[in-house]
Amino acid sequence: MSLPVTRLYLEDLHVGQVFHSRDYPLSQAQIIEFAQAFDPQSYHLDPVAAEQSFFEGLAASGWHTAAITGRLVVESVLLEPGVIGAGVEIKWNEPTRPGDVLRVISTITQIRPLRSKPDRAIVTLESRTLNQDDAVKQTLISSLVAFHRPD
Amino acid sequence: MSLPVTRLYLEDLHVGQVFHSRDYPLSQAQIIEFAQAFDPQSYHLDPVAAEQSFFEGLAASGWHTAAITGRLVVESVLLEPGVIGAGVEIKWNEPTRPGDVLRVISTITQIRPLRSKPDRAIVTLESRTLNQDDAVKQTLISSLVAFHRPD
Repeated sequence: MSLPVTRLYLEDLHVGQVFHSRDYPLSQAQIIEFAQAFDPQSYHLDPVAAEQSFFEGLAASGWHTAAITGRLVVESVLLEPGVIGAGVEIKWNEPTRPGDVLRVISTITQIRPLRSKPDRAIVTLESRTLNQDDAVKQTLISSLVAFHRPD
Repeated sequence: MSLPVTRLYLEDLHVGQVFHSRDYPLSQAQIIEFAQAFDPQSYHLDPVAAEQSFFEGLAASGWHTAAITGRLVVESVLLEPGVIGAGVEIKWNEPTRPGDVLRVISTITQIRPLRSKPDRAIVTLESRTLNQDDAVKQTLISSLVAFHRPD
């Protein structure tokens, strides 16, 4: 029997709080499959053509890195009733490559109450996506909706 | 025999230039499949549970709307050698729903030469993702790398 998971409300959050995700290994096949669906450009699809491209080798679509980051944030930042984003800023620092093992370190940098809706606040979360060599592949700043614990 | 596609270099771009994508119909099955891979939260996975949620019905993951938008931008903004993003800002105005038919209207709002690399510039592209009722589902501001036509 596993322990019940503690879900987080606003009362459980503070600026400076850090969350670590699990590792997520990314294969060449996954990169190509995602690109076929959402970003069909040769440097995301074809390892040989990619060699001569801007990326100098097969690179994951930035949207793929973003979506994997989203999943790792959902798994590691256990907000109740979930991770609900109003908006984000993404910087792709360098391309994600086949064989990269990604993980995400997220830090709360701001908590801003909403005057119009006193049951909730906007939490700013900065998430760095790293590979196995600690290279920063993506920086994500998310505005999330977080709720007070109900009475 | 189809006509050759004209790919765009910096010389072909100007502020105010507009690009229209094709339509992209989004099914409930696609929403659930994407959520299983990248955003496994009940309001993206389970139409019944979603009724009682923040979203009041099944909603696509914001990352799914973003990835579809990415694809429609790649298909409609034919930069050479491709759409290469350095970073983006996304605002999710309202959730995307099963049965929505998405399309993207993109406008160039700025072209900024790079002093350090005279062969290229940073193009700011604002992309609105609309459904069949002209409701704005997402606003995306992308910083793209565009290149001068080679001599």
